[in-house]
Amino acid sequence: MTNKEKILSQLLVAKGEPISGQKLADELSISRTMIWKHLKALEEEGYVIEAVKKKGYILISTPDIVSKERITTYLQTLQLGHNILYYPVCDSTQNIATEKARNGASHGTVIITEQQSAGRGRLERAWDSSANKGIWMSVVIRPEISPHMAPQFTLVSAVAITKAIEEMTDIVPEIKWPNDLLINGKKMTGILTELQADMDRVQSIIIGIGVNVNQELESFDQSIQSIATSLKIETGHEINRAALVAKILFYLEKYSTIYVEKGFEPIKLLWESYSCTIGKRVRATLLRETLEGIAIGITNDGVLQLRLDNGEIRGIYSADIHLT
Amino acid sequence: MTNKEKILSQLLVAKGEPISGQKLADELSISRTMIWKHLKALEEEGYVIEAVKKKGYILISTPDIVSKERITTYLQTLQLGHNILYYPVCDSTQNIATEKARNGASHGTVIITEQQSAGRGRLERAWDSSANKGIWMSVVIRPEISPHMAPQFTLVSAVAITKAIEEMTDIVPEIKWPNDLLINGKKMTGILTELQADMDRVQSIIIGIGVNVNQELESFDQSIQSIATSLKIETGHEINRAALVAKILFYLEKYSTIYVEKGFEPIKLLWESYSCTIGKRVRATLLRETLEGIAIGITNDGVLQLRLDNGEIRGIYSADIHLT
Repeated sequence: MTNKEKILSQLLVAKGEPISGQKLADELSISRTMIWKHLKALEEEGYVIEAVKKKGYILISTPDIVSKERITTYLQTLQLGHNILYYPVCDSTQNIATEKARNGASHGTVIITEQQSAGRGRLERAWDSSANKGIWMSVVIRPEISPHMAPQFTLVSAVAITKAIEEMTDIVPEIKWPNDLLINGKKMTGILTELQADMDRVQSIIIGIGVNVNQELESFDQSIQSIATSLKIETGHEINRAALVAKILFYLEKYSTIYVEKGFEPIKLLWESYSCTIGKRVRATLLRETLEGIAIGITNDGVLQLRLDNGEIRGIYSADIHLT
Repeated sequence: MTNKEKILSQLLVAKGEPISGQKLADELSISRTMIWKHLKALEEEGYVIEAVKKKGYILISTPDIVSKERITTYLQTLQLGHNILYYPVCDSTQNIATEKARNGASHGTVIITEQQSAGRGRLERAWDSSANKGIWMSVVIRPEISPHMAPQFTLVSAVAITKAIEEMTDIVPEIKWPNDLLINGKKMTGILTELQADMDRVQSIIIGIGVNVNQELESFDQSIQSIATSLKIETGHEINRAALVAKILFYLEKYSTIYVEKGFEPIKLLWESYSCTIGKRVRATLLRETLEGIAIGITNDGVLQLRLDNGEIRGIYSADIHLT
């Protein structure tokens, strides 16, 4: 943590009680002038800090931003999120992360923004990423694995985000294969996983995560109001986005490690427990055909198994799934 | 073809017979001054062209280069090699191709050079790419396939290069799984296949190809003279590199199309017919362990099947293979 982050962390922990400037200066072994400069910097980021005579500084309110400092306050990971690049606005965190990964960005690097001008989902579809209301981030990971193990990271990510949301809100989203998280049948999260690899090993996987957090229903475009939702709409209250980011990174690290070390089996069990696809009749729109049948499970390669009406079982690597 | 390429093509087809400048000008509907300018440009590239009074121009000799113009003369493909970027020297065609692919280089784009300063093979190993003696190129392809079909392109490429060399030299290289071509047990070709994909589809595959063509044994570093060879060493004569490039692109296009349209089965049969691995006892060095057994075949996913001494059959996605 930087000194600024340490000061913020102390103010947050104090929960409205004053902390003396001298105490902060002593603990960090820096001058009171430096403490004052860091507090000014925090105020410029939107923190409201009150100086109470002879008592010290009180944190009155925090801006609802997902800055490096705020996320770091909540971070409990060993590696993910230890390098956070925060952009107030950008075109697409996925584009920036791809560029950074090519130039050597370390394992666990996070690109996060308040607003994307060109957010994208699967199959080059646009993704609405309105300002200061959602989580729009991309995580660069560099697991030492063979490329055939990469596609499963979409499912690992889906489980991690579901678990994080469950812990933060008591709502349990459902996973629609392969990468949509739904609440009451409406989409609130999308995952876009991209891969750079040679035939021997993965160079980088970039996990793009979009979560609708604090939007009101009216903030969605009319055309998607019947199919989209946010955590605020479903829970009735605002969610601390920075804390949710830290929680997602925590479970993403945890489940990625389990997957790399123990294989897909434990993740598959979790995934199936959250899935709204398995056991259901679905229509799968593939690149070149459309299939209907019962989704009977996923394989250890993350492939959806579809039992067609003629009894044939087909493995689906990529498709749009509609519950019928 | 550009006008310069058309003129070169005519000179090559004439095989030492003179072609009149007026005839060239008429056929191309350009002035004789323009014809003369294109001939000068060709001379600057190393072509020796003689002007015979009242008869026309004779091509005396061609430089041994793999320029766009020379390759295009031999090209018989529908798409591959229709955009060739030629660099007299570069660091690595694979690096340039990766950059070009990210910026939208079209399907079939070829990056080719006379000499690489930082050629690389599998697992970041160095690859000796001496000047004007080999084929050092990278091909960008954009097949509309799901990423699980990508790893097989290493095997598709191995078959294509083997077939091209067989046709050009009457020597039949053997393929050592996954990506080495050998003659008399010595390596003369390496293939490095890299992938950019999301979980639904391949964005680009970059096939890096290094072929030792016209090196003498002494031109190899002493440390690899016992394990490396070139087509010249094996055949006793120089090979036309530009013609071989065109032949490789021809078979790469042919076999890629077969693979995408018909699946891996027909390619697998070809691959197995050229393989020196199948049926042999091998030692496989993996990322985390070493296995010994009989290589009994490859699956439709391109995975090597190894029967261990205890009878267990293991699928090998990535390894170094040594015949024992």
